[in-house]
Amino acid sequence: MSQGLRVTVWNEFIHERRHEAIGKMYPEGIHGAIANYLRSTGLVAQTATLDMPEHGLTDEVLNNTDVLIWWGHMAHGQVSDDVVNKVHQRVVKDGMGLIVLHSGHFSKIFIKLMGTSCNLKWREAGDKERLWVVSPGHPIVEGIGEYIEIPNAEMYGEHFDIPEPDTLVFISWFQGGEVFRSGCCFHRGRGKIFYFRPGHETYPIFHHAQVLKVIGNAVRWAAPNGGPVVTFGHRPEPLEPFEKVDPLAALDHPSLTD
Amino acid sequence: MSQGLRVTVWNEFIHERRHEAIGKMYPEGIHGAIANYLRSTGLVAQTATLDMPEHGLTDEVLNNTDVLIWWGHMAHGQVSDDVVNKVHQRVVKDGMGLIVLHSGHFSKIFIKLMGTSCNLKWREAGDKERLWVVSPGHPIVEGIGEYIEIPNAEMYGEHFDIPEPDTLVFISWFQGGEVFRSGCCFHRGRGKIFYFRPGHETYPIFHHAQVLKVIGNAVRWAAPNGGPVVTFGHRPEPLEPFEKVDPLAALDHPSLTD
Amino acid sequence: MSQGLRVTVWNEFIHERRHEAIGKMYPEGIHGAIANYLRSTGLVAQTATLDMPEHGLTDEVLNNTDVLIWWGHMAHGQVSDDVVNKVHQRVVKDGMGLIVLHSGHFSKIFIKLMGTSCNLKWREAGDKERLWVVSPGHPIVEGIGEYIEIPNAEMYGEHFDIPEPDTLVFISWFQGGEVFRSGCCFHRGRGKIFYFRPGHETYPIFHHAQVLKVIGNAVRWAAPNGGPVVTFGHRPEPLEPFEKVDPLAALDHPSLTD
Amino acid sequence: MSQGLRVTVWNEFIHERRHEAIGKMYPEGIHGAIANYLRSTGLVAQTATLDMPEHGLTDEVLNNTDVLIWWGHMAHGQVSDDVVNKVHQRVVKDGMGLIVLHSGHFSKIFIKLMGTSCNLKWREAGDKERLWVVSPGHPIVEGIGEYIEIPNAEMYGEHFDIPEPDTLVFISWFQGGEVFRSGCCFHRGRGKIFYFRPGHETYPIFHHAQVLKVIGNAVRWAAPNGGPVVTFGHRPEPLEPFEKVDPLAALDHPSLTD
Repeated sequence: MSQGLRVTVWNEFIHERRHEAIGKMYPEGIHGAIANYLRSTGLVAQTATLDMPEHGLTDEVLNNTDVLIWWGHMAHGQVSDDVVNKVHQRVVKDGMGLIVLHSGHFSKIFIKLMGTSCNLKWREAGDKERLWVVSPGHPIVEGIGEYIEIPNAEMYGEHFDIPEPDTLVFISWFQGGEVFRSGCCFHRGRGKIFYFRPGHETYPIFHHAQVLKVIGNAVRWAAPNGGPVVTFGHRPEPLEPFEKVDPLAALDHPSLTD
Repeated sequence: MSQGLRVTVWNEFIHERRHEAIGKMYPEGIHGAIANYLRSTGLVAQTATLDMPEHGLTDEVLNNTDVLIWWGHMAHGQVSDDVVNKVHQRVVKDGMGLIVLHSGHFSKIFIKLMGTSCNLKWREAGDKERLWVVSPGHPIVEGIGEYIEIPNAEMYGEHFDIPEPDTLVFISWFQGGEVFRSGCCFHRGRGKIFYFRPGHETYPIFHHAQVLKVIGNAVRWAAPNGGPVVTFGHRPEPLEPFEKVDPLAALDHPSLTD
Repeated sequence: MSQGLRVTVWNEFIHERRHEAIGKMYPEGIHGAIANYLRSTGLVAQTATLDMPEHGLTDEVLNNTDVLIWWGHMAHGQVSDDVVNKVHQRVVKDGMGLIVLHSGHFSKIFIKLMGTSCNLKWREAGDKERLWVVSPGHPIVEGIGEYIEIPNAEMYGEHFDIPEPDTLVFISWFQGGEVFRSGCCFHRGRGKIFYFRPGHETYPIFHHAQVLKVIGNAVRWAAPNGGPVVTFGHRPEPLEPFEKVDPLAALDHPSLTD
Repeated sequence: MSQGLRVTVWNEFIHERRHEAIGKMYPEGIHGAIANYLRSTGLVAQTATLDMPEHGLTDEVLNNTDVLIWWGHMAHGQVSDDVVNKVHQRVVKDGMGLIVLHSGHFSKIFIKLMGTSCNLKWREAGDKERLWVVSPGHPIVEGIGEYIEIPNAEMYGEHFDIPEPDTLVFISWFQGGEVFRSGCCFHRGRGKIFYFRPGHETYPIFHHAQVLKVIGNAVRWAAPNGGPVVTFGHRPEPLEPFEKVDPLAALDHPSLTD
């Protein structure tokens, strides 16, 4: 079933065009590197970028997206609130999966879904990073060993101001002395969200086989599941009939204190 | 220690002045009924309402509030975004407790903190409600029996579109056939949040001894705890010194796929 | 992938042979009814019962089982501790899925995995039951509506003495006034466990289309995921070399109080 | 209220008497060091050791213990199952708090409450340890900074085979490259459990001011809360009367598949 999953990889796509070295590392952009990998595993992947109309996330694109991957860094403020609200609806109401990578922790959509500041500590010094698996039965770590080692990474350190994850999958160790909750699963409405820490534009992290493997696993985990379409609102008739009561008539009930 | 806790009870305070019967039930407003109870238990309680300047939630008031209680129903849209943002900061950054009552599920502050729609099903027919304790070791149920019975209540039914609570304390049974997660604890940033379902303006629920007892317990649970002031941002120097690495030099590492 | 999943359905298989009416309801036993359904969805299902050598759960059977389904009621004490310990190892160490049905809440294996009494309230009076979905994005509710209605059921009521589930999927409403956490997901070690409440031997609940659908979904959710084989024990050599320290030399460190 | 809390500190008390250097570090035993600290904060603390009759945990002692602290290392197998079962009952049924320190992860009582192997990786090489706070609003970190630094410690590394904690409070960074979930809160029945990693007999960790502070905070958090005494068992009469149904009469209901 996961063969037909439709993924859209979104990228603000600025660093790669502005810095020659980064452009060489990701000649098709970070989104292109990720989409190429996902296609190689049998998924249907398209890309979208900030500079496209509606940032490439039109109704038609969103309606044909099972899982959206989000990478942004320096231009979070340029993403329109309308697009953010549409993506939010698609996740919470319709169950579209969302995978937020690295600096996407400060994207409008992630902050809106988390309800917290999503702030953290950071350092760009090439720390060695080791992501330890703490939930070895989770589908997101299929094919992964006890840890993933990344030779040089931007450090992200606790406290990471997010709600406690529904499942914590990875904890990172950093050479410089910090730790970080690096793989975090959340359910929000009908949707599933995975935050995955690795991935900076100045490191070749989206060419790392294990990092890519986790992203592919996360797509399969976050895909919509065909659960109930939830309905809300006024239900004047009870499922079990009973005689309705005048609320103010209840004032004399002995359970009341006065 | 909890003796000195400072609570602010916020109410939009419209129903009580518009409908004579509701005004008789809550002559000092819902906020007054709750504040009077809290004072009787040794807490310091003040009140604030929608029609006051800054809705009564000035910096001075917020800076002197350990726990804020929120009741709103028909005028959520009239609450200014500035006040909502200040309350949000006070919870997440400073650790102020927040207790959201009943129809406050649709308040701007609760939706902003949860990240979901906070929608639900509802019926105003005087259903009998029974709130069952499912977390009997939690401080919020101190002095409560196995369940709380409310003779007539507005029904709220699942699905309640919230993140899975960090601790689920109460589940409600309704006469008409529905259930609801009625007592929900959340940690957000340094703050603690308790959503408590009972309490409609047309029922005397804020005179119910067990309901009031839970609100008082929740204040004590949600109070700030003196944990660390969290710092965020750029940390150029590691705690453990190491030789910093040119990120682009890492491109040849054997862990990379290409 | 789920096509090849191998399920073993275990049943103590006493009621069906002792009571004619129950035997008519489940002519191949409860295990037979469930296994037949699972086969009809493309799974490989075998059965095992209490009266078989090693209760039918030999090493060979367990080593060829991806997910074990457990139904027991009146003979929990007759299950050998050796078999329980082997099943426990298979779940925690090897990642075999486990689905515990109804009165299996009192089975040795469930109590051992939960660490609590697993006790509850019960009544056999034919209550109407309605299982409300509270986690609509979860794979276990694929193809299910907002609730499942069971016309007559044995009632189980809170407090249910289990650890707070990792994900709560269903909450039951009962006609007689109780609620129950009826669909509960747990991760334990490398294994996934689903407790599902419906199913008494005197009601035809394992012929109920929606109940069977959930059991099939749960099998797919609980299947092993190919995550890391976890290693434990003494690791004298650090991953990051450093000069080892004589522990007793540290007594003068200024962080110490005396 | 917390002034009158009654704590019992249990220690197997072998290392301190067998090794002169350890005996000098803890002249009154590890239990004595901890109990002295707790008394200095206004708590009532007594101690109990393995070699006492019933390991010092008689009914009278347990009935007068609000919170039990457990330190064991080399003699877990010598603790009688009867005592373990009584402690388990006191936690789950009566709400006694339990704080398990360091090598107590392998104690019978902790394994019984967790339901998993509680295994981990370890190294005794004097690693520097830094415990980062990841739940800054939790009462257990009152008065603690963003992290606790321990100059030399025995390393414990992931994967730590425990259920996902209800709240994760600390994550440890180790010099040798590992991480560990070092402060873990669990609710089990009416009781609260805190696992706290630091503390080896060959390091002066129970003289560390911040470690002791956390233990004292944990005692206050884990104390019983006066919630409901839960009742279980057969309830033939419903809270809401209805006409009872002959279970076998339900066989023709249209919800059934065959």
